[in-house]
Amino acid sequence: MPSLLIIAHGSRRAASNDEVRALADAVRAQPGQAYDHVEAAFLELAEPGIPEGLTDLAAKGATDIVAFPYFLAAGTHVAQDIPEAIAEFAARHPGVRVRLAQHLGASAALPAAILGMAA
Amino acid sequence: MPSLLIIAHGSRRAASNDEVRALADAVRAQPGQAYDHVEAAFLELAEPGIPEGLTDLAAKGATDIVAFPYFLAAGTHVAQDIPEAIAEFAARHPGVRVRLAQHLGASAALPAAILGMAA
Repeated sequence: MPSLLIIAHGSRRAASNDEVRALADAVRAQPGQAYDHVEAAFLELAEPGIPEGLTDLAAKGATDIVAFPYFLAAGTHVAQDIPEAIAEFAARHPGVRVRLAQHLGASAALPAAILGMAA
Repeated sequence: MPSLLIIAHGSRRAASNDEVRALADAVRAQPGQAYDHVEAAFLELAEPGIPEGLTDLAAKGATDIVAFPYFLAAGTHVAQDIPEAIAEFAARHPGVRVRLAQHLGASAALPAAILGMAA
């Protein structure tokens, strides 16, 4: 089964980073979810970074990783920084496939999800 | 039926604000969605602001508005600024009920939604 890396921006507020880690825990705990491992990583300001997060998953045996940018807007971080970090990792780990998912704000599933959240 | 106001932070990047407006359009277009009106508003840096967004909905006849903070982290904006803006509106519009939903990042529906998005 694939593994999931939830990639957030990272914050100087420890509580914000802990929110992301708790989200990864909650995703991992969803009944019937189909990932071997679900972890959080951060573009900056918090640990683990993206390379470390990917490396940690590979060390656990992951060979197929879905990288999910937990970002609302398609700015430079989503368009450049995250793809570059993943490409660098992939170049050094040819045995690990990393698939970059659409960022949260662009997900086709978000409109329906918001209706469920706001209700 | 209630109306939905999706409240984003707002950005100096027009494209980011347009992403939020497109999201409101997509939510409005969901089959079977149960809101009379679905609009976007911004805490700062973009129009309409929160008071204007709420007033526009009231002008369309809305008397029951769900305000959904489109924010990932529970910082000052979510904890103070948005509730204050809503309270000020509510004080001036006693005939309009405004219900503040949990922000996106804290929604109990988010973990399951992420599994659908990342798949």
